[in-house]
This record gives sequence, C-alpha cells and structure tokens, in this order.
Amino acid sequence: MSNGTYAKGLEGVIAAESSICKIDGANGKLYYRGYSIEDLVQNCSFEEVTYLLLYGALPTEQERSGFSQRMRAGRDLAPPILDMIRNFPKAAHPMQLLQSVIAYLSAYVEHVIQHGETCNCRNTLHQVVQLASVIATYQRFAEGGDYVKPRADLSHGANFLYMMHGEAPDALEGEIMDKCLLLHAEHGFNASTFTARVVASTLSTCYCSISSAIGSLFGSLHGGANERVIAMADKIGGKENVRAYLDNALSQKEKIMGMGHRVYKAMDPRAVVMEGFLKQLSEKKNDFHYYGILKEVQTVFRRVMEEKGKPIYPNVDFFSGAVYLLLGIPPILFTPIFAAARVSGWLAHILEQRSDNRIYRPKCLYVGPEARAFADIDKR
Amino acid sequence: MSNGTYAKGLEGVIAAESSICKIDGANGKLYYRGYSIEDLVQNCSFEEVTYLLLYGALPTEQERSGFSQRMRAGRDLAPPILDMIRNFPKAAHPMQLLQSVIAYLSAYVEHVIQHGETCNCRNTLHQVVQLASVIATYQRFAEGGDYVKPRADLSHGANFLYMMHGEAPDALEGEIMDKCLLLHAEHGFNASTFTARVVASTLSTCYCSISSAIGSLFGSLHGGANERVIAMADKIGGKENVRAYLDNALSQKEKIMGMGHRVYKAMDPRAVVMEGFLKQLSEKKNDFHYYGILKEVQTVFRRVMEEKGKPIYPNVDFFSGAVYLLLGIPPILFTPIFAAARVSGWLAHILEQRSDNRIYRPKCLYVGPEARAFADIDKR
Repeated sequence: MSNGTYAKGLEGVIAAESSICKIDGANGKLYYRGYSIEDLVQNCSFEEVTYLLLYGALPTEQERSGFSQRMRAGRDLAPPILDMIRNFPKAAHPMQLLQSVIAYLSAYVEHVIQHGETCNCRNTLHQVVQLASVIATYQRFAEGGDYVKPRADLSHGANFLYMMHGEAPDALEGEIMDKCLLLHAEHGFNASTFTARVVASTLSTCYCSISSAIGSLFGSLHGGANERVIAMADKIGGKENVRAYLDNALSQKEKIMGMGHRVYKAMDPRAVVMEGFLKQLSEKKNDFHYYGILKEVQTVFRRVMEEKGKPIYPNVDFFSGAVYLLLGIPPILFTPIFAAARVSGWLAHILEQRSDNRIYRPKCLYVGPEARAFADIDKR
Repeated sequence: MSNGTYAKGLEGVIAAESSICKIDGANGKLYYRGYSIEDLVQNCSFEEVTYLLLYGALPTEQERSGFSQRMRAGRDLAPPILDMIRNFPKAAHPMQLLQSVIAYLSAYVEHVIQHGETCNCRNTLHQVVQLASVIATYQRFAEGGDYVKPRADLSHGANFLYMMHGEAPDALEGEIMDKCLLLHAEHGFNASTFTARVVASTLSTCYCSISSAIGSLFGSLHGGANERVIAMADKIGGKENVRAYLDNALSQKEKIMGMGHRVYKAMDPRAVVMEGFLKQLSEKKNDFHYYGILKEVQTVFRRVMEEKGKPIYPNVDFFSGAVYLLLGIPPILFTPIFAAARVSGWLAHILEQRSDNRIYRPKCLYVGPEARAFADIDKR
C-alpha cells in the first residue's frame, strides 16, 4: 500500500487466476503449462510452444502438423500492409508500426469480426504469424530491398530471418532464432500481458487486444532492456575496460543493464540458454567481441555483488541483444522481436481471460477540487 | 472478492488517485475538474473543455484562443492516412481503423518520439484532433465522396460534420455536435481510461496509449450501447408498440437498452442534456419518430419499475443515438464518435498517470499444472 489506502501500480494485488505460466523465482525455474523452459527449448519449435500455450497441451504429430500448416499459410503480407510499411516515416519507431498494423489486420481476417463478436483466435493465428513478417519487411525496406515472399518450408524463426535478409539462414542460425522466440513467448503477468487482458475483458477482438499490448511493451519501463545492454557494451568498448567501467558506474549508483530481475532471485533460466546461443554463434563466426565484454561484466559484477552479500545474476536481456546482432538484426528491432515472440503468450492470456471473464474496472480515489462555480471567460 | 482471495475484474479495488472527474451518482451530478457538466455544456466548447481537462483550469481568452488555434491547425490528414482509410476493407469496423491510425500517426508528429522518450502531449494535441477527421473521412469515402479539407473557422464538432457531409452544418447542428463531444469527453475510471493509464504507465507514448484505449472501447461490454438503443427503437417501430414490446421484454428478462447506470442511481445528467438536444433537433426537422418512441419507452419503463420499487433512469446512451441520426450520422459511427470525444479525457488521465507514475503490474494466482515431465511427440 503506497499511502495506506491503495496499492500504487496495483503492486501485490491479485488481478486474475491463470494456468499458463509458472515462475519459480527462488529456484530460477520457468514453466509453460507445467513444462520447464529447458525441456521446451531443447525439444520444441516456436510453433509447437504456441500450440502448447493456446491449447494447454503438447500437440500430437497430427495436431502439430496441422497447426504448423495453418501458421505458415498466414505469413504473406497483403498489399495495403506493405504500403503501410513503405510509407511509415523513417524517423519513427517500428513498434508503433506494429501496433498500427495489428489493429489494421483485423480487417483482413477471412472470418470478418463485427462489433461485439468475439473472433475465433484459434482459427486465425494471423496476428502471431504476421508480426514477424511485418518486422522482417520493415527492415528489408529500410535497407532498400524488395519484399521477400515467405517460405513455408522454414520454421517461424528461420522464415523471419529469410524475409529480412533475402536469403535463408543456415540450420544453426534458423534454429537459434526460432528458440529465441520460444524463450520469450510467455512470462506470466506483466504490463503488456495485463494490457492484453484488460482490453480483452471488454470483449474487444484479439487484434485490438494484441495491438494494445504492443503499445504497452513499447514503454521504456517494459521493453528495450537488451537494446540498453548493447549500448552499455558499446560504451565499454572492450573487455579490458570492464573493471573501470563498473567501478565508475557503481560509484555513480548507475544501474547495470541486463542484471537482476524482479522475480528471479537465482539466475534467469532463459539467460542460461541465451548464453549458450551466444557462445555457439560467437564460435561459428569467430567473433567474440560482445561475448567477451558481457562475460567479463558478468564475472566482475558477480564478484563485486557477492562481496556486498547481494548476488545479482544476468536476466534474459543480458545476452539476447548480442545474439540478435550476430544473427544480423539491428538493435531497433529488439523490442519488436520481443513482441513477435510474446504474442503467443498474449493470445493465450486473452483466451484464458475470455473463458471466465469480468471486465476490468477498478476504482479511483477522487482527490480533485470540490464543486466550484463557473466563471465567465473575462473573469478568469 | 469473487472467491475469497481476489477481486475479479479488480472490482472495488482502488487503482489510482485522480483529480480529473467526480461522479456523484446518488445525486446525478458530474463534474470535470470541479465544474458541473451543466455549466460546461452551457458555456464551453469542446476545445475549451479539452483545455480544462488537460490543464485543470478554465482558459483565459488568450489561452483559449491559442489552444484553439493549435487544435485547428492539426485537422488535416496526411496522404498515407487517407490511403489507410481508402484501403480499409468495407466489411471491417471503423474502430479498428481508428486504433490503427492513431498508432500510425505517432510517426507524423513534428517532435519525433524515440523509444523511451515521453512525448509532449500538450504541444501536439494531434490525436484529439485527428480522430474526428479520420471518422468523418471514413464515412465520406464510404459514401463515395472525396476528401474534404478541414475548415479552421468551425468548432471541433461543426468541422467534423463539415468534413463528413461536405457542407457546413447550420449553427444549431454544429453546436449540438460540439456539445455532444463535450458531454462524452470524460467519465472517470472505466475500462478504456484504465487501459490508457496502464499503457502510459510503461512510459509508452500518448499515441500508443490512446490507440490502446480505442481497442478497449471497441469491446461490446464497454462501447456500443447507443447503437443498441437505436436497434431496439427500430425493432419497436412506433410508439404505439412500446407497451407490448416492454411487457414482452420484461417477461423475458431482457435488458432495456440505455436504461440504468452502474454509477448513477438518479438520472444521468448527460441524458437530461441529450434529451434537450433531441427535442430541439426533432422540432427543427419536424421528425419525432425516434423521440416519440424513446419518450414512450422512458415513461412506460419508469412506471413499471417504480411499481416494482426499483426506479431506473435513462443514461447518456438512451437519447444520443437518435441525436446522431438527426445529424446525419449512421450507427456504425456512434462508438467511433465516443472515442473522438473521450480522447480528451484519456489524454488528461495519461498526463496525470505520468505525473506520479508507477507501472501497473498486478499479480496473478497460478492455478495451472505443477511441473510435469516432457513427452516426446510420438508418446503423446
């Protein structure tokens, strides 16, 4: 309670029941529908995990194949969407384009959604798929390329890289991209997921709800941490400068980017996986620039914090930016990619919200002026 | 508390302090920043009330004039926005177009917003103004007309009708339109306003926040009641059928549209004003079709409910649809117009949220499966 009467930011307030995601912060464990993130990242594709999140169970081979076909059939972008991407001013941020396109897309669903009707999200999956296509094409156009038609033989992650770069990634890069999406697909309640549920609770469409969640993720208190990790690494410049950088930053009480997590008190399990990806890609490309700096930051920072008795571990954002850079993805796309991954979780939460819905309508405490007499404009 | 542990829909939970709007439901009174809605509707324009909502005080003549100039300068739509309206599939709902356009518009602000930077809403006012232009132009194109450039000599409401119909309304119609917007400009916490604040609390932009609020308002549990009142009146057909319709509806326990309000236990003060507008327009056009039916519904329904000891009064939606129809506005635009009005309140709430921000991040209660072993796909 911030002032004895209410909890600011609804901190500590339970807003709903959910059976989608369990975070065991004390032990550094994350589960989607009961399955550990380690098992999922080792055995599943992003499509399979999307199925799990939406249906609550892992698919049989027949289910997986049908679901995958449905998802892949929705990758191509309609001409008016290509125009929106082309016309989008260069100085603006692609997150705003994503929010806009997803709302606009609702009009392209075969099953037209009328006011008040709830769309059948499980049949469309349109939003999940098209987000990645929009991001890839945004970057493609920014680099002066032409639209690259999707390929249905590639995984969701590999096709994303293909549509962005105009050539298919090799097996390792395609797989790592797909697993990065999987790792970010869901993480319980947070501001964007809560936004998706609030909007869904009015019985608005999935498109409207997901568009709104994207708007929420765009805020700097929510998305963007991996961009800031890379900015920090660039400022450090080389691993030999890490000690001096950290000494200075800590003496100025600056926050070290990508370190610590509100929920995880042990290591973020996604960071462990992400570090493995970074190591693999660094070795493959024989480019240890970011990996070297980041490992040094991690080591030195851990030592410093352990001396203070406050161990702090890397979170998922600490290594992910460097992974994306090695996949040829610029920092401006890091938060959009987060959206392209989390959309599966948002959709699962929207369906869960609808299954036992009550409109979110908290109260506010009026602290403004009491009734006052109107004054004509010449008497103000 | 729905189940002894938490309040579903956050019902009864205080989420924030606010000094923007006071609703005195017991006495049927509504205040914006301490001024009664009756005083405001009698003395102010929509622009002036927008100023009041954003700044907390009524403007001096100089302030009013400068603010009005800023708002009127932002009415014209950019060519890519006109394309988005033109290309929007006819079967889709304009609310989704609005949500999309507002997110897209952020890229057109002179003061370009970079990720993490908070936009200076008071300087742009762009969203408030352009919403009305988009709705008018959507309808204009739907009727096969060309884009009508805005006129800076008209009030916000009159210019809206001008851009939609291609000719300026007379003084009475222009004024009524403007006052209808004013009447809907703010109404405390509700799902869309709460959505705007949740998104703003991540430090996302005003555009992202307002786009999200539009998505929330689109839900049938939130917007659309005045459309349903007109549908009910059309079903009734003539005032001579009211008694039979109500008898049947009440025996079937159907809801009577536009009657009753969650907060107002007396008459909704906006409904009183709205009825006056409907009377004026009906007399001017010598067309009492809807007014006749609605008054009869009100009279008969009141009598029935008073007999049951449960008096129920019309809310703002009861007469507003009929007013809009007499202004030449089709039902599909009723909820979009609600957005074009409420955007001023949303913006005020976004600024208030930022002035003392904490990110909205409630908890959820995990009720899903405990950790379970992964099963290979051929063993499922």
